[in-house]
Parts: sequence; structure tokens; C-alpha cells
Amino acid sequence: MSEEKTKEQELQAIIEKIGPLDEKAMEKARARMDILTKPQGSLGRMEDLAVQLAGIHGDFFPVDFRKRVVVMAADHGVTEEGISAYPSEVTAQMAANFTGGGAAINVFSRQGGVEVEVVDVGIRVDNNLPGVKRVRVKAGSDNFRRRPAMSRLEALEALLAGIECAREAAEDGIKVLATGEMGIGNTTASSAVMAALSGYETSLVVGRGAGLDDEKLLHKQKVVAEALDMHKPDPKDPIGVLSLVGGLEIAALTGLILGAASRRIPVVIDGFISGTAALTAVEMCSNARYYLVPSHLSAESGHALLMDYLNLQPYIHMGMRLGEGTGAVLAMHLLEVAARVTLEMATFEDARVSNKEVEKEEEVGSESRGAEQ
Amino acid sequence: MSEEKTKEQELQAIIEKIGPLDEKAMEKARARMDILTKPQGSLGRMEDLAVQLAGIHGDFFPVDFRKRVVVMAADHGVTEEGISAYPSEVTAQMAANFTGGGAAINVFSRQGGVEVEVVDVGIRVDNNLPGVKRVRVKAGSDNFRRRPAMSRLEALEALLAGIECAREAAEDGIKVLATGEMGIGNTTASSAVMAALSGYETSLVVGRGAGLDDEKLLHKQKVVAEALDMHKPDPKDPIGVLSLVGGLEIAALTGLILGAASRRIPVVIDGFISGTAALTAVEMCSNARYYLVPSHLSAESGHALLMDYLNLQPYIHMGMRLGEGTGAVLAMHLLEVAARVTLEMATFEDARVSNKEVEKEEEVGSESRGAEQ
Repeated sequence: MSEEKTKEQELQAIIEKIGPLDEKAMEKARARMDILTKPQGSLGRMEDLAVQLAGIHGDFFPVDFRKRVVVMAADHGVTEEGISAYPSEVTAQMAANFTGGGAAINVFSRQGGVEVEVVDVGIRVDNNLPGVKRVRVKAGSDNFRRRPAMSRLEALEALLAGIECAREAAEDGIKVLATGEMGIGNTTASSAVMAALSGYETSLVVGRGAGLDDEKLLHKQKVVAEALDMHKPDPKDPIGVLSLVGGLEIAALTGLILGAASRRIPVVIDGFISGTAALTAVEMCSNARYYLVPSHLSAESGHALLMDYLNLQPYIHMGMRLGEGTGAVLAMHLLEVAARVTLEMATFEDARVSNKEVEKEEEVGSESRGAEQ
Repeated sequence: MSEEKTKEQELQAIIEKIGPLDEKAMEKARARMDILTKPQGSLGRMEDLAVQLAGIHGDFFPVDFRKRVVVMAADHGVTEEGISAYPSEVTAQMAANFTGGGAAINVFSRQGGVEVEVVDVGIRVDNNLPGVKRVRVKAGSDNFRRRPAMSRLEALEALLAGIECAREAAEDGIKVLATGEMGIGNTTASSAVMAALSGYETSLVVGRGAGLDDEKLLHKQKVVAEALDMHKPDPKDPIGVLSLVGGLEIAALTGLILGAASRRIPVVIDGFISGTAALTAVEMCSNARYYLVPSHLSAESGHALLMDYLNLQPYIHMGMRLGEGTGAVLAMHLLEVAARVTLEMATFEDARVSNKEVEKEEEVGSESRGAEQ
């Protein structure tokens, strides 16, 4: 009990550090957007993103920054209920694939120049894989259809493990974080957390995950509905929600988001599981939402609703539903472009100067002036 | 007349080279997608893109390829009618900005590792800018509200200039092309071409361009409607449509697309003007559509309709409406990831092998096997 209190205080201290965006830096970025050589507003949400990045960073965001996706991996006891298309063992096997560099997240990250950190927050079997960060809170969550997924203390430990990853990232000089995950059964846990926190019907938030047929989908909805009925999680107590029907990686991602926000690091949110962690983080601390950057719209059915609820508009529409952080890593490129636009695009004034130089050299007539008219 | 015929034959020879996709290569890519370590189909349209790239290339697409955006620049006589928010001089000024490296397209391309080629196909004033490829068919198109935008011979010359750019790109070892443009007044010409070819009402295809108010928008619609009424372009004669109500850069982009397709080079289509060129290319040669890769959904109002008409679903939704090729260059990253997924992701079999090695080293229990079960 006392350990629980200490950890809850530790968490609270992080949450209290999460402030609003820097309005001055945002105004400066917005003003810059308006003098760059393009019709005002013509870069659309790329401009909004640049302004958000400035607001997070407290100044124009740098270019050529280090970036990292943190892939939180854990198992789910609720797989006992037959809610997943894949057996639970695949979590460990995919963690090995991540360290081998052969998974989608590795390939996406290689193209994007993004570092991949794999964290075992609770894979069922302790494989002690080389290259995997080991913060095993518990050997997989318990079956939340029968009992709480984890104790409140364990939920806090997973949250703090995520916060610790954000701290390390900041110390490593990482400027942008992305959320990733692996855990057979984790769309089920995410649906339960989303339903508990948002109040949406389970039929709206439970989807096909890695590929369920109609019958199994109905079964999955029933499992989630029954679990919520049994535990009656209090939506005003997000830690309680995580411990009753959540997952270790969902809790760790929630911590990662809070930790990133507390250090003014933008965090790119992947698909449904990551989005659920973002929702949980925002429920714990409403300021956290300013640090969230959307990425792609997942094909998992609850994701669009979740993004709407968080008022995030995903940038990339490719119908992906893989998780691991793949969508978030894709969107890193958009952040890099937004930062570069702010710092490297010529202003109308710059362009007029360079134009005049061209004029002198090339004897261009007066027709070539006048962009600002 | 004889010169016109020669050029028409030259164009026809290119069109005849444009074949369908390589079905065998596509099947091979599709089969590979299904054995990679991910739930089948879970990368959504990223998988379709990988399959399309294989079908174009005739085998798995390479990684780390050279890529280029070709920015076709030209002026439009129809600006005399007051249909643009910017004066015509800005075309030349922006071309100078492109060569100076300060425009949005330069910044986007720098982040994406994309080469920028700027082509003067008909800027009004001959600035002979260093770094700009000069194929000045004509010093800007004529005001198509009063007379044809250009002669049929000039339209052919612009088309062939684009084809020539594709040839040079192929010889330079470019593996993917993107379309870009600059031309004050070119959303007006594009709207007219789109309306002529698709039969859509002008009110549906004419948008605000770089930023018209309601009154000017209505005027722009009126100008386009009156021009179509006067010229009555034949939708079955795309060259005729280009010459009557098109633009030099639209014709050149059409040629670039046809040239790319004839050399089995995928071509990423930017926004409204580029989309109009794609439509024109497809009307000239229906096989050309297989080589088109969509990029972003532009905020220019006719673009969604245009993409629908071409059965292209844009991947990136950022509300941009700048042109220059900015959206297309953003999407290059997606192509690179798609190619890399095909070549670099581990198969289930690979992963089992690497898993067994981990087992030996780490004494992992039997629970860690079984991804294919």
C-alpha cells in the first residue's frame, strides 16, 4: 500500500510537469508561415503541425533530429477466452523478430532513420532476448474476463516504466518519440479500456484485430462487455481502468506519452492500441493532448472513433492495421518536413533579394518582380 | 501541317509502348506479402502499392533508388481575365526561388532525398535562369477565354518536351518520377481541361486556387464556362483539349506521365494540376493509369472528384493546396517503404529460423515457437 502511494506520487509529479504549449513560440511560427513563399495557408495541416512542434519545443523545431519508436511488448491473459486470431506465443516470437530486424517496424524505421527500442513489459515467457530492454512488471496480464488484468501497483509500475523510457530518450537526445506495441490480445484490452473511459458501446469499439471472422468478433464483443459488466471500472480513475481491463504495454505506452509530454517531446501516436494509451494519458492529464501528433488512420474499426474523441485527424490513410508503431514511424517524415519548412523555406523578402540578384546577373526585366503585390 | 503529323506520330509511338502491368511480377509480390511476418493484408494499401510497383518494374522494386520531381513552369494568358490571386509575374519569380532552393518543393525534396528539375516550358519572360531546363515552347499560353491557348503543334511540342524529360530521367537512372508545376493561372486551365474531358459541370471543378474570394471564384467559373462554350473542345481529342483550353505545363506533365509509363517508371501524381495531366494522359492511353501513384488529397475543390474519376485514392490528407509537386514528393517516402517491405521483411519461415537460433543461445522454451499455427 505504501509502495503504491510512493509510485502514485511519482506519477503525479510527472503529470504536474506537463504544461500547455508555448504560445509565444507558436505565434512566432505562425507569423513565419505567413511570410514564406507560398500562398498563405496553402500547406494546410503541415503548417498547423509546424506550429504545434514550435509550441512543444518552445521555439522553431530543429531539423535532422534523432527519433525513436518505443515498442512495448506484453502478453494478455484474456487470450484464454479465444479472442485473437493468433496464439499468445507470437508475442515472444515477434519480439525476437524485432531484435532480428525483420519485422515491419524495423523496415519502416530503417527507411525513416528511426531508432527502434523494444521493451519487454510482460511477455509471458522470459526469453531474455538480447537487444530487448527488460522491465518485466509481470509475466503477462491476467485474464480480465475472470479477474483484474493486474494489480494497481503493477499498473503503476508499467506506467513508470514508460515514463523511464521517455526520460532515457530525452537523455539520449531523442527529439521525437513514436509509440509502438506488440501483444497478442491487445486490441481486446484496448477496446475494454476505450469503452470504459469513453462510455462508447462495446459494439462500436471492438474490432477484428489481426483478423477475426464474424462469429469470433461477436464473441470478442461479448467478452469485453462481460468484463466491463463484472469490473465496473470507474472512468474517472484511469489507473483503475488499466489495472482492471488494461494491458501492461498499454499502461507503459500511457507512461511513455506522459513522460514525453513532461519533457516537451512530441509523441507520434500509432493505431488503436497506441490511441487507447493516448486517451488514457489525456484522461490522466488533459495537457498531455498538446504533445500528441496523429499519424495514420487504422483499419481497426474503433480507431476512427478514438481519433475523433481525441480530436486528432490522422494524416496517412493507407488502411493499415498492423500496429508495432508502423503508422507512427511513417508520419515521422511529415514532422521532419514540417520542421524543415519552418527553418529552410525562403520568405517573400528573401526571394525578392535573390530575385534581384538574378536580375542583375541575367538582365531580367521588371516583370519578374512583385510577388507581394 | 507536316511537322504536326511527324510529332503526332512520335507521340503515338510512345503511347504504343505503354503496356499493362506485369501480372507475374505482381503475383510474386502478392505471394510474398502473404508470407511476411504480419497478419495477411494488415499493411493495407501499402501492400497494394508494393504489388503495383512490382507490376510496373517487372520484379520486386529496388530500394535506395534515385527519384526526381519534374517541376514544369509556364504562364497563362487567361490571367488577363483576373482569375488568379497572384499576378502572372510570380511564375518567373518562383522559378528563381526553385533554383535558389528556397521554395517548398526544395525543402520537401531535401528531406525526402528527391532531385528537383525545373523546366521552363513557357514562362512569359525569358529569364534564362541558371539551373532551369529551357524548352520554351511559347512565351506563355494565350488567353483561352478569347482564342485557343496554343496551336495544336505547340501542344504537341509541350507533350514531347515532357516525354523527353522522362527519357532523360530514365537514362540518369531515376526509378520514380513525381509531377510538379508552377504557373499562375493554372488551376483555371486545369479546371477547363478537366471539365472538357470529364463532362463535369464547371461549378464542380473550378476552385479557389491560390486563394480567391467568393466573388472572384464565381468570375473564374464564368470564365471557364464561357471558354468551353466558345471552343466546344472534343473530349475524344485530348490534344485538341490541351491546345484549346490547356496550358503548356499541363501538356508537358501529360507527356512526362506518358514517357514515364512507356519506360515502366512509376509516376507520383501531385495535386489538381498534376491530376488533370494524369487524366489527359489516361484519356490518350488507358494503360497509362497503371503507372500512376496517388499522393495527397488537395484542398483544391475539384481534386477529390478528379481522383475519384481516375480511381486513385490519395494516401496523405494534410489539406495542402500548394502544388509545385509538394504532395507527390511527400508520398515518395511511402513508395520507398513499400519497396523495402517487399525486399527486407522476414518471412514466417525466416523468423522461425532466427527464433530457433535464439532458442539455442538463450534456452528459450517451446512456448516461443508456433507463429504459423
